[in-house]
Amino acid sequence: MPVAGSSVRAEQIELMASLAHQERTSGEFEKSLAKLSDMESDLSPEQQANLREWRRDFKIATCLPNEFVKEFARLSSEALTVWGKARKENSFKTFAPYLEKMVALSQKKAELLGYKDHPYDALLDTFEPDTTSKELTELFSKVKSEIQTLLKKIEGAKQVDGSCLHGNFSPDKQLEFGKVVLEAMGYDLDKGRLDLSTHPFSMAIHPSDSRITTRIHQSSLFDSLSCVLHEGGHSLYEMGMLPEYYGSPLCEAVSLGIHESQSRLWETRIGQSKPFWNHFLPKLANTFPTLKEVPLETFYKAINKVAPSLIRIESDEVTYSLHVIIRFELEKKLIEGSLKVADLPEAWNAEMQKTLGITPPTDTEGCLQDIHWSMGAFGYFPTYALGNLYASQFFATLQEKFPDWEKRVASGDLLFVREWLREQIHQHGKTYRAADLVKKVTGKPLSPEPYITYLNTKYSKIYE
Amino acid sequence: MPVAGSSVRAEQIELMASLAHQERTSGEFEKSLAKLSDMESDLSPEQQANLREWRRDFKIATCLPNEFVKEFARLSSEALTVWGKARKENSFKTFAPYLEKMVALSQKKAELLGYKDHPYDALLDTFEPDTTSKELTELFSKVKSEIQTLLKKIEGAKQVDGSCLHGNFSPDKQLEFGKVVLEAMGYDLDKGRLDLSTHPFSMAIHPSDSRITTRIHQSSLFDSLSCVLHEGGHSLYEMGMLPEYYGSPLCEAVSLGIHESQSRLWETRIGQSKPFWNHFLPKLANTFPTLKEVPLETFYKAINKVAPSLIRIESDEVTYSLHVIIRFELEKKLIEGSLKVADLPEAWNAEMQKTLGITPPTDTEGCLQDIHWSMGAFGYFPTYALGNLYASQFFATLQEKFPDWEKRVASGDLLFVREWLREQIHQHGKTYRAADLVKKVTGKPLSPEPYITYLNTKYSKIYE
Repeated sequence: MPVAGSSVRAEQIELMASLAHQERTSGEFEKSLAKLSDMESDLSPEQQANLREWRRDFKIATCLPNEFVKEFARLSSEALTVWGKARKENSFKTFAPYLEKMVALSQKKAELLGYKDHPYDALLDTFEPDTTSKELTELFSKVKSEIQTLLKKIEGAKQVDGSCLHGNFSPDKQLEFGKVVLEAMGYDLDKGRLDLSTHPFSMAIHPSDSRITTRIHQSSLFDSLSCVLHEGGHSLYEMGMLPEYYGSPLCEAVSLGIHESQSRLWETRIGQSKPFWNHFLPKLANTFPTLKEVPLETFYKAINKVAPSLIRIESDEVTYSLHVIIRFELEKKLIEGSLKVADLPEAWNAEMQKTLGITPPTDTEGCLQDIHWSMGAFGYFPTYALGNLYASQFFATLQEKFPDWEKRVASGDLLFVREWLREQIHQHGKTYRAADLVKKVTGKPLSPEPYITYLNTKYSKIYE
Repeated sequence: MPVAGSSVRAEQIELMASLAHQERTSGEFEKSLAKLSDMESDLSPEQQANLREWRRDFKIATCLPNEFVKEFARLSSEALTVWGKARKENSFKTFAPYLEKMVALSQKKAELLGYKDHPYDALLDTFEPDTTSKELTELFSKVKSEIQTLLKKIEGAKQVDGSCLHGNFSPDKQLEFGKVVLEAMGYDLDKGRLDLSTHPFSMAIHPSDSRITTRIHQSSLFDSLSCVLHEGGHSLYEMGMLPEYYGSPLCEAVSLGIHESQSRLWETRIGQSKPFWNHFLPKLANTFPTLKEVPLETFYKAINKVAPSLIRIESDEVTYSLHVIIRFELEKKLIEGSLKVADLPEAWNAEMQKTLGITPPTDTEGCLQDIHWSMGAFGYFPTYALGNLYASQFFATLQEKFPDWEKRVASGDLLFVREWLREQIHQHGKTYRAADLVKKVTGKPLSPEPYITYLNTKYSKIYE
């Protein structure tokens, strides 16, 4: 979009959002919901699921007055611009007044939405329905301490050499190779596209039109592939829903956490696995001949190198959830009022030092690094860590169902993974809530064990 | 867009079109129009212009029942696909049944819209308001015979050498040079974009967001530049309207013919002029050093080379209007019923032979070459030739107002052209109907003279 076009785009979006809000909260819609509720027992389970989700959407939409929605949208749009400026100038002071307003408005949002125990739960519920901060606190404290123990062991071990991933890798060829991987994953390029953008993302319009982007650093090989696997995983979820349900919750993702489980499963459980590279490393070496000298073991270790770092989106598989948990703890405190915005940088840096052993030299590399708070997306961060937990529990079940999974992946067969995810998860849309889906697919409620076991087993081997 | 995404896009467009049609034909809108009509004498001239256009739009929208609009849309969508296939297979027979239905539906459309003298006028009026086929027939017969006379003279003269435009020209550099030209024209790249597409087009969302595309042949230098000048001319028209009128007819183009006058003025009167290349040829030669040896005169003649050819969009400045006039004459006959669809290829080929002295060896290079009829856009073609007439009459006035125009253009100054067009034409949107605008800007009603004089003068010199 041309720079100057953004304000008319904003007007269009505001108009569309307001028209959609009118429809969503109309008396006519309310009456239809009431009618459906009267006949609920005669509905099929899928219809009941639709009704449940429509009721939920209606409740949320009616809790938030149009004026509030507009004020929130206006403030995020402003705060987003100021955040960009503050980051550039490394000036938390510039951003602070906007963040204060954003926190206040989010507290008000929590009150409008209502909650049982903690105001944060109301916000969390908009991204991860039915999940509470109490539950997350329990899950995450276990995950945190286990990862910290693992991290200490890794820091004491022989370090991994990641140098084979650095050099000069043609962006065009990286992009081409990304498409090869996507097609192996079962990503249908007739129903999607792979393009470039500064921040990789996936955008789903319909099961028949789901597009992704990646970023490419010419000097670094794995970053873009990793993004392709991640965004490809998101996109396969959307492509796997049933078009005949399009327009209803049955053709929508369960939650952000479940969405993230799909991207993380492909990115880490497949794309950072040895069998995957057993098949793809020779192909990658055909594209980039310097890799011909690199043994599989060296390459595998390089893409799984662990090192505490400042930036969440650049962090390795082991420390990633720690970054997320730090944000969850801080934002919960901001919303409950026990942490003042003015004290955020100090609290951030202290947590980074305590948890990862490093202190950001600047706020740009610290509490200003993420876009989420500027948009008022409090409650979003934990879904990243939840995605890891869900992915591990799903993958443990896949491993049971396909005891030969490593052999199949090592032969280049990835389609059975997509088919299984499609059958178990994708095609159901919002039929099941996250907790029910996890139980249905894995036979057990969500637990941090599969994730912890996976990390411990994998990284004990890598770091001997 | 991914291939498979087109059907959901079509659904979205149909829905939006139908919602817009509902609004446009609503009783509420009708009442507002009536109220405004009651106070018409108290309105400002601009408000009166809006009212006039809103009334016209309302009349057209209400003439066409929703069911008819949908049937028309469905048939065009089908016919468009069949047309593509028929072109590929060079099979007019495949397309004929769809074209027959399209002609029949267009005849029905003419009846629904209403007309005074000729059913074609009703269709023409949707693209070029207030213009009649009688008027066009007079204008075009004069233009046709004059161009044919000129063409005979050219064919008898020493031919022009166009070889300097052929070679190997990096697409990236061609695109970069296109941007240099756009900026010189006063095209604001903060408010627009230049991208690539198979068929060049311009797309205006708002005066602050008006984008264009071009196509690039690596072996040919001028085609892309010519497209950039053409689409840039369209886009400058849209950028020159007043954003405060956005959403009303005052921020809309007068007609397709006036729109085309803006693109053709930049493409031919500026971009194919000697002063323009006096400034830009040395710059182009810096980008493509093989041009350093090419004298201005040689280059100027090459880009103005005349040769009858089969394909309208590849034709030169002299024969272009002849292609258009042939289509106008044929489509008028199709609509009045004096030419049957089955006889179209024969009629087409006979006209091409009579007018341009060549006969298409295939229908793909003949009556299947244009997309318009498959979409039911009867009445669209003449606006291309009208664009040439308007452009010439406007430019004749510009030449009077700026007697030193050649000197200014030769020094690289093009902004005065954009400013004059903006002041005279762009900023007024639909305030004036085409005929009134021409009179207001040039002091005279539309006449073919300036166009004929221009062609004769220019090409007498080039072909000595």
